[in-house]
Amino acid sequence: MGIEDVLSDLKKKIQDKLPKGITISDLEFEGPELVIYTVDPKAFADNGDIIRSLAKDLRMRLVVRPDPRMLAEPELAIKKIAEIVPAESGVTNHYFDTETGEVIIEAEKPGLVIGRHGSTLREITKHIGWTPKVVRTPPIESTTVRDIRRYLRNVKDERKAILQVIGKKIHRPITSKEQWIRITTLGGCKEVGRSSFLLSTPETRILIDCGVSTGAEANGTPYLYVPEVSPLSNIDAVVLTHAHLDHCGMIPLLYKYGYEGPVYMTPPTRDLMALLQLDYIEVANREGKRPPYESAMIRETLKHTITLNYGDVTDIAPDIRLTFYNSGHILGSAIAHFHVGEGLYNVAFSGDFKYEKTRLFDPAVNQFPRIETMVMESTYGGMHDMQPSRREAEIDLQNIIRRTLQRGGKALVPTFAVGRSQEVMIVLEEAIRKGIIDNVPVYLDGMIWEATAIHTTYPEYLNVELQDMIFHKGQNPFLSSSFVQVDSQQKRQSILADPSPCIVLATSGMMNGGPVMEYFKQYGADKRNTLIFVGYQAEGTMGRRIQKGWTEIPMSTEGRTDVMRVEMEVATVDGFSGHSDRRQLMEWVKRMDPRPERIITNHGDENKCLDLASSIYKKYKHETKSPMNLETIRLI
Amino acid sequence: MGIEDVLSDLKKKIQDKLPKGITISDLEFEGPELVIYTVDPKAFADNGDIIRSLAKDLRMRLVVRPDPRMLAEPELAIKKIAEIVPAESGVTNHYFDTETGEVIIEAEKPGLVIGRHGSTLREITKHIGWTPKVVRTPPIESTTVRDIRRYLRNVKDERKAILQVIGKKIHRPITSKEQWIRITTLGGCKEVGRSSFLLSTPETRILIDCGVSTGAEANGTPYLYVPEVSPLSNIDAVVLTHAHLDHCGMIPLLYKYGYEGPVYMTPPTRDLMALLQLDYIEVANREGKRPPYESAMIRETLKHTITLNYGDVTDIAPDIRLTFYNSGHILGSAIAHFHVGEGLYNVAFSGDFKYEKTRLFDPAVNQFPRIETMVMESTYGGMHDMQPSRREAEIDLQNIIRRTLQRGGKALVPTFAVGRSQEVMIVLEEAIRKGIIDNVPVYLDGMIWEATAIHTTYPEYLNVELQDMIFHKGQNPFLSSSFVQVDSQQKRQSILADPSPCIVLATSGMMNGGPVMEYFKQYGADKRNTLIFVGYQAEGTMGRRIQKGWTEIPMSTEGRTDVMRVEMEVATVDGFSGHSDRRQLMEWVKRMDPRPERIITNHGDENKCLDLASSIYKKYKHETKSPMNLETIRLI
Repeated sequence: MGIEDVLSDLKKKIQDKLPKGITISDLEFEGPELVIYTVDPKAFADNGDIIRSLAKDLRMRLVVRPDPRMLAEPELAIKKIAEIVPAESGVTNHYFDTETGEVIIEAEKPGLVIGRHGSTLREITKHIGWTPKVVRTPPIESTTVRDIRRYLRNVKDERKAILQVIGKKIHRPITSKEQWIRITTLGGCKEVGRSSFLLSTPETRILIDCGVSTGAEANGTPYLYVPEVSPLSNIDAVVLTHAHLDHCGMIPLLYKYGYEGPVYMTPPTRDLMALLQLDYIEVANREGKRPPYESAMIRETLKHTITLNYGDVTDIAPDIRLTFYNSGHILGSAIAHFHVGEGLYNVAFSGDFKYEKTRLFDPAVNQFPRIETMVMESTYGGMHDMQPSRREAEIDLQNIIRRTLQRGGKALVPTFAVGRSQEVMIVLEEAIRKGIIDNVPVYLDGMIWEATAIHTTYPEYLNVELQDMIFHKGQNPFLSSSFVQVDSQQKRQSILADPSPCIVLATSGMMNGGPVMEYFKQYGADKRNTLIFVGYQAEGTMGRRIQKGWTEIPMSTEGRTDVMRVEMEVATVDGFSGHSDRRQLMEWVKRMDPRPERIITNHGDENKCLDLASSIYKKYKHETKSPMNLETIRLI
Repeated sequence: MGIEDVLSDLKKKIQDKLPKGITISDLEFEGPELVIYTVDPKAFADNGDIIRSLAKDLRMRLVVRPDPRMLAEPELAIKKIAEIVPAESGVTNHYFDTETGEVIIEAEKPGLVIGRHGSTLREITKHIGWTPKVVRTPPIESTTVRDIRRYLRNVKDERKAILQVIGKKIHRPITSKEQWIRITTLGGCKEVGRSSFLLSTPETRILIDCGVSTGAEANGTPYLYVPEVSPLSNIDAVVLTHAHLDHCGMIPLLYKYGYEGPVYMTPPTRDLMALLQLDYIEVANREGKRPPYESAMIRETLKHTITLNYGDVTDIAPDIRLTFYNSGHILGSAIAHFHVGEGLYNVAFSGDFKYEKTRLFDPAVNQFPRIETMVMESTYGGMHDMQPSRREAEIDLQNIIRRTLQRGGKALVPTFAVGRSQEVMIVLEEAIRKGIIDNVPVYLDGMIWEATAIHTTYPEYLNVELQDMIFHKGQNPFLSSSFVQVDSQQKRQSILADPSPCIVLATSGMMNGGPVMEYFKQYGADKRNTLIFVGYQAEGTMGRRIQKGWTEIPMSTEGRTDVMRVEMEVATVDGFSGHSDRRQLMEWVKRMDPRPERIITNHGDENKCLDLASSIYKKYKHETKSPMNLETIRLI
């Protein structure tokens, strides 16, 4: 049975289920979706439940597109849309795509354009024929989001062709008669960095994450040249858990070496990923290192990206369904859950996860429809890797900043752009709003502003309380006037020259370069100021040295090296980590429902992976394994 | 550095070490050997130690060949050889190969043609120029050995070309900078049958064994289509531990699907392998099943076979040296020991082994220069898998046969052709010679005679006592006049019609077909006769049913099925197994020197593999693993 037979079978099934008088003119696969072309788009829109019930019956993601003859003129359509959607929805832009019959509506409040169960969308279709898709107008303009959206519009024809090829591959008939499932470890086992796994069946090969080790390690790339993953063109799909470089940094390299398939991730992960990958090659170039790929390969990655929201059950191969679940680590971070075969087996990869409610996110999910094997991270998997609670950490941070500002000093916080910064911003915004700390400007330097803009684009990926504040109370903490973007050298100079107390959040998080260094040079000699570490400082970094108590720091300025004396206070606030601590890791396993048969630990130093695995085995009696890189474990 | 540079480097090194006046005209690789062409073959022969000391310095296997101009006319050469070698050596044939300058001398006593440390061979070279190679004239004519030798002479040009390609591959410079060693399990794990492992490094892939499951299992073939071993053309070498079909049965299939490299094994393994593979496809054809390959593929295998004797340390890849050690299981059976890198790692695959001195073989070796990981069989790895000693088994067998013959009955012993039969033959020969049992004919039916002929071709693979008997006492038990070959239906009929007491050894060993069935039909109804099982009877076989006590056996003759009543005595003699029992497995590990870090168990039912692994861990504290098929274990 070929793909054409699959489609004609489906056409018959759908036609049988449709009310009389609604006909489908064509049917095709685009990526994981089945596209139904019809000359009766309005009839579909009239029967709101048809699509939902069809999708449920067929266990497929469906899209209905109007036959081109049914489309209203764009000018007329824009007028009609304005009549249908409430004025408060704040529509800022329309993009018409005659190829797909889609109109992308950019709105400040997408929910109002969608309506309950999509009722407003269907209303639009009924009047204009076009299929509306809604995206959020970022409340803070993000150049990344703007550029990506523009790029994807520019390459839409090429992208459509790619999706059609992918769609046919996903829905190909299963040919293999064997039954086995294997995991091959390609990186990130008994180490932190270059995370990468291969999940394979006789039919399919899925790569989960493809990161880079950005530390000093000799081998920064996953083992991509071993026979299990070569040629790369034999891989069916890449699945990305989240946007940090140790998980996504080498995905563009795959396209350089012959991979042509899709990459699945959540929408915020796509934007953060592009931001961090571009920064990665920019930093490499600035440091005179040859980056492993060029920006063209990042665009290639975007061209092949298919975004899925949490909970979307999606066919990504003839025998594999993928579902993302919130992992609470950073914006859009996901646990990737794979359902293999029809009820055969379920395996999930936790990626990095936080099992504690934070300012930004709900705790990582640990309830699944089914789960037999869980692959989980072990960053803080050691017996003694306990962290203060988030609440304690926040009070600690507030106290340090308060006393710094009160003595007329400045608080300098080196942070990663993505995740930690926004967490600290929310804490500061509340503290200022409630008068716990003085109302001073909070300067954001480096990529922090841009990363924050991406956070404001996807409020539905934040936790319930934050969504409630933003959507119902109209209080978006990221839009607080306390936050000031540092977007030019001039601006930075004026801040550096200003003697009044302030708070500065700047990259890089471990002080190995980045704008934070300029503030450090300026503020370092004044005892009233405080340097506050909120994240892990790796061995060998400048941050680590200062944290350990070095007071004489060699600094090179314009080729000359001077020794700088550190007089400012140096403080460390633990507890802001995006990773679960030992207690949270154990609790997450304990409360997992259903109980998995097997737990595989990775993403941690060797002793942490082993310690966590043996503790889980001793305490909860799960079968556990802690593989090395380059091993293969058979699941079934 | 290419292969040409490697050769010119070697040429310089060799020339430097040679005495003045000896020049080498050319140098090339043929398989693992370095061939030195010279116009002074006599000078090489004069300096007996040159080659040995060169080989030691270069750590390579060397062959010296005369320039063709230096070769005497064959007629003259034959005359000269006859003058040089002692008359008792019993030269039966000469084969001259002008291409290689080699003369193959077939002799009844090859040792006399070779002389001490090869002194007689050198004497021959000095006089005729040709390089003599000596093979044994089988004292019992083996059609297998004769056919294989003839075939290899016929394809010698093609074979030389193949060896040159292999030689260049083996000696290619190492390009990879990574360092890891992995074992992938392709078959024979937690099961008995289709044994196959992949040993891989960044540079090299070695397949160890490639067997077939001959039982009722659904999947008779190792997992050869997984990416780790595909394409097959990427495999550097196949190494075969011994000739049983569950280890070698699928090797010809490799050549059918694109493998073009060498297969390493001992010389007796080559002959037994061809015998058993040919029988395998013959039986399949007879039973109307389509065999997985044709006899042409068996010839292809022979064409690519490189034989190594126990103890020959041989480069088989740029980073891997192979050495075979006696495993005591069947004729030529070996433990395959791999030395990886220059002192990096040592791993060995036990194949099937017997850690007890038997009539035919010395016990399996467990002393190695170095060993870090041992992969070992678990056939009798269960806690209670104890067998009587060989001595007890022999007495048991003698008693049963004695009482059978004394009451005028016939003893019928179903056996496998290879291994068990010869073991029983030696016991019977001694018992008859010593008068313990009556002097009756011992009929050998099925492939037993042919397998015995192969045993007589390689007495140096038998244990010291047997060699001593054969070489020094002139008593070859296999040549005893008690043994009678059944080589025609007519002969069989006359034996079946003869009422006098006798002993019959016949295949198949589990009574699922073969000539044994004809004897069984004839002898079954007479209470004086005895059916004696000396080997394992698998569930579902006729042998198993009779052993369990069935007395009414449905037998089909010429399409009609009759019920046959079994009146003959049925006896089972345990202890003749070629596998180590539980106690021997544990002792072998305990006394292994040096002590390996890790033991991997395979080749046994799941519970046997697990039981053995956990017992070894508990008792001797080795790290142990018992993988499933399709897993990959990283060694370093």
